[in-house]
Amino acid sequence: MPDAIDFWFSTGSTYTYLTVSRLEQVEAATGMRFNWRPFSVRAIMRVQNNSPFANKPVKMGYMWRDIERRAGLYGLPVKVPAPYPLQEFDRANRVALLGLEEGWGKPYIVASYRRWFVDGQEPGMEPNLSASLREVGQDPARVVGQAQSDRIGGVYGAATDEARRLGVFGSPTFAVKGELFWGDDRLDDAICWLKHGRLVA
Amino acid sequence: MPDAIDFWFSTGSTYTYLTVSRLEQVEAATGMRFNWRPFSVRAIMRVQNNSPFANKPVKMGYMWRDIERRAGLYGLPVKVPAPYPLQEFDRANRVALLGLEEGWGKPYIVASYRRWFVDGQEPGMEPNLSASLREVGQDPARVVGQAQSDRIGGVYGAATDEARRLGVFGSPTFAVKGELFWGDDRLDDAICWLKHGRLVA
Repeated sequence: MPDAIDFWFSTGSTYTYLTVSRLEQVEAATGMRFNWRPFSVRAIMRVQNNSPFANKPVKMGYMWRDIERRAGLYGLPVKVPAPYPLQEFDRANRVALLGLEEGWGKPYIVASYRRWFVDGQEPGMEPNLSASLREVGQDPARVVGQAQSDRIGGVYGAATDEARRLGVFGSPTFAVKGELFWGDDRLDDAICWLKHGRLVA
Repeated sequence: MPDAIDFWFSTGSTYTYLTVSRLEQVEAATGMRFNWRPFSVRAIMRVQNNSPFANKPVKMGYMWRDIERRAGLYGLPVKVPAPYPLQEFDRANRVALLGLEEGWGKPYIVASYRRWFVDGQEPGMEPNLSASLREVGQDPARVVGQAQSDRIGGVYGAATDEARRLGVFGSPTFAVKGELFWGDDRLDDAICWLKHGRLVA
């Protein structure tokens, strides 16, 4: 897939709301394809002593306002602050992984983020979990059971290891031609790099 | 000054290289004016437990590569990694403050950043300090003496207090109409906000 960009992300990252909610439109507008790669940014951040907002209330306040403004730019509804950090971070990402394997992952992830940022319901927990799964035609009991299997745990851990080896330390990160672009605000840079091999105005 | 944006920065911030080196061009192209406001981002970061790169080698490596790519975008020369963190951070900013009072501050700051990011010489120390001052027609002995005065120390402390009260926690930060925009990559957002009161594509 020469025209694909690896989109590394964790449900639980706040800025990732801006990415997942517009990525289909971006694909349609640019012809780019994105490989959605859930991983545990939390596991990597813990090891790297890189907690972006914990015990940093001023920076956290800025982050919510920044997201609010940029959601406006993209025409996305948003009500901030949303609950943070997520209590069921790993479950949210395991469900996302299973969904991407089975073909319903993208709309599920977008739906779960919408419930988080518009309705204030955390992904990976009720009522968000069942409502978002039913919205994409899935049985919550089956999905939650499979998502907590050792097999999905192994896939999740392997994806996180792969992200770490690549040098990914935050979400979202776009990987293209050996380059990493971190942050929703680097999406255009990643697309530009794929097209031109450098950044152009 | 209705069309002015407050540009809060510390010499010592890496990404600020991208801002100071192109701000005159941006002013010419957009008609915006920027009030250059040096402060101690280090003092604020220390209190807020917000050290962006210390003990974070993976994130630091990304930062240098990100700056290198974006310098290419702006047509700026760059050799990374540059020395970091600065040993004479406060002196660099006190000299900048004095220079802005006396009218030679902007070209001095740009020159000191160029020596840092192109020649690998730290601002606030020799040989960068004297060479950058002579480049803008100033006597190094006089300037360094004045910069370490209690008066400039007071101005520096007051600017840092003002930044803290505004909610500034990083450099560069653009303040416009009660909004803060953090990061060189938010310069366009700040300009847009001044023009339209919101972000528009």
